Amino acid sequence: MDLMKSGWFSEVSELWPGQSFSLEIKQVLFHKKSKFQDVLIVQTKNHGRALILDGIIQCTEFDEFSYQEMISFLPLCVHKNPEKVLVVGGGDGGVAREVAKHPLVKEFVQVEIDSMVIEQSKKFLPFMAKGFESPKLTLVVGDGFEYMKKHQNEFDVIITDSSDPVGPAVNLFTEGYFHLLKTALKPHGVICSQAGTVWSDLHHVKETLKNCQKHFPAVKYSISSVPTYPNGQIGYLVASLDENVDLTKPVYRLSENQIEALSLRYYNSQIHEASFVLPNFFNRTLWS
Amino acid sequence: MDLMKSGWFSEVSELWPGQSFSLEIKQVLFHKKSKFQDVLIVQTKNHGRALILDGIIQCTEFDEFSYQEMISFLPLCVHKNPEKVLVVGGGDGGVAREVAKHPLVKEFVQVEIDSMVIEQSKKFLPFMAKGFESPKLTLVVGDGFEYMKKHQNEFDVIITDSSDPVGPAVNLFTEGYFHLLKTALKPHGVICSQAGTVWSDLHHVKETLKNCQKHFPAVKYSISSVPTYPNGQIGYLVASLDENVDLTKPVYRLSENQIEALSLRYYNSQIHEASFVLPNFFNRTLWS
Repeated sequence: MDLMKSGWFSEVSELWPGQSFSLEIKQVLFHKKSKFQDVLIVQTKNHGRALILDGIIQCTEFDEFSYQEMISFLPLCVHKNPEKVLVVGGGDGGVAREVAKHPLVKEFVQVEIDSMVIEQSKKFLPFMAKGFESPKLTLVVGDGFEYMKKHQNEFDVIITDSSDPVGPAVNLFTEGYFHLLKTALKPHGVICSQAGTVWSDLHHVKETLKNCQKHFPAVKYSISSVPTYPNGQIGYLVASLDENVDLTKPVYRLSENQIEALSLRYYNSQIHEASFVLPNFFNRTLWS
Repeated sequence: MDLMKSGWFSEVSELWPGQSFSLEIKQVLFHKKSKFQDVLIVQTKNHGRALILDGIIQCTEFDEFSYQEMISFLPLCVHKNPEKVLVVGGGDGGVAREVAKHPLVKEFVQVEIDSMVIEQSKKFLPFMAKGFESPKLTLVVGDGFEYMKKHQNEFDVIITDSSDPVGPAVNLFTEGYFHLLKTALKPHGVICSQAGTVWSDLHHVKETLKNCQKHFPAVKYSISSVPTYPNGQIGYLVASLDENVDLTKPVYRLSENQIEALSLRYYNSQIHEASFVLPNFFNRTLWS
């Protein structure tokens, strides 16, 4: 393997041309092609363990909490009563870990298409895969599209924890997907999806927001810092079926004690609000 | 040159072990050792032109505006009357470009130690070096320490635009430096310094803040997204001699028209406030 020869893994993608992020690797723990993608799990030198799908870093032990906490708590904290939740994707278990924490969530279903990611995360990435141990969770191996077609008007919140818009996740950014999300939600339902960053691809973020706006009256875009993602940043699309909801203001606010008790390392109620405040060049281009 | 053989420049430093960011290079425009450091200017494939000092990326045309606008407007907008400003470092001219924009600034002095950076930026990085053309500016080639010793009680705002704490910038993070800043300021003076990010080096950020707190009663830490910096983020130390000032609230607030007229691509008054809202793991560790 070239990877082990050099001792470094380098992430190169046409999604972010002319730049590359590299991690020093101590050991390859798992590497195999699944039915859907290339699955690589490594022990890095300084970033703990990392999951890499189709050559793109999905999460590292160093910084995964920023993404997992934000994509989970942003939608959960703007819904008045997020009792029943659906997670699409998220095969590493990190989102399940965070959703399980929220005091108002009574039950949640997770639909992940690639069983290899689930199994190997359980084996090698227990800091995330411990999310699968929640008694609130029903884990389904299958296609999120197909699942939602059979489960209409059922969920308060739906979180889409997908990889980037190439490979198995390509459909999770389309208008058709947002239509399906809408039908699977109960009234007042809220969604949150990984939406890329404007630094990498303004056009893609804008398209995704537009696709969502065709079916949701309230749509916002939020960002958080994730150092091992391209440009060190990831964006979240948060949307509600209820046009009167201010998605930037959490209705469920966390106390200092709760933050401590829930082991939240990134998300707090102030970060929630601040994460929707965007640089001028984002604002100018995103909503025009 | 190895650099041109591979067609990529890779940034490796013991300041952020186990990770490396690379830029694809089209052409080396300038490469020479100055009296102080290795000066490299390149034309990248997708990030415009870039300035690299001692192997560390200082700024790229793609994202430099985030850093330059924030390090300038954060302190300028919390001072009631920032008439006279000192910039230490900033040899590329980007901070000068931003300071010159602020309507309340009447004059500013910039002290940069390395004339080669100034000269080559003028030649190859005009999008930043145009800052040197401001009639408000007095440009001094010399040592910021020595300059401030001779200019006491003179400035409303002092901005330290330094490289990282290795090489020529190592003294710009010490207690002695913050003492000198204090003496060079007028009453109610405000400072802003590049302060690194907690993701890279908590210990360094904490030390810098502590050194500052020994001389300034009001000290805060702010962050912005700069994709080509390590971890995609940079931090700013903002401090005031006036303990009653809330550094997170700009007293000079910019209208939409001003933002447009001043060509601000990142900074706005909402971003100012939001940039001080920190993740839990920053808050827990930084001020303890």
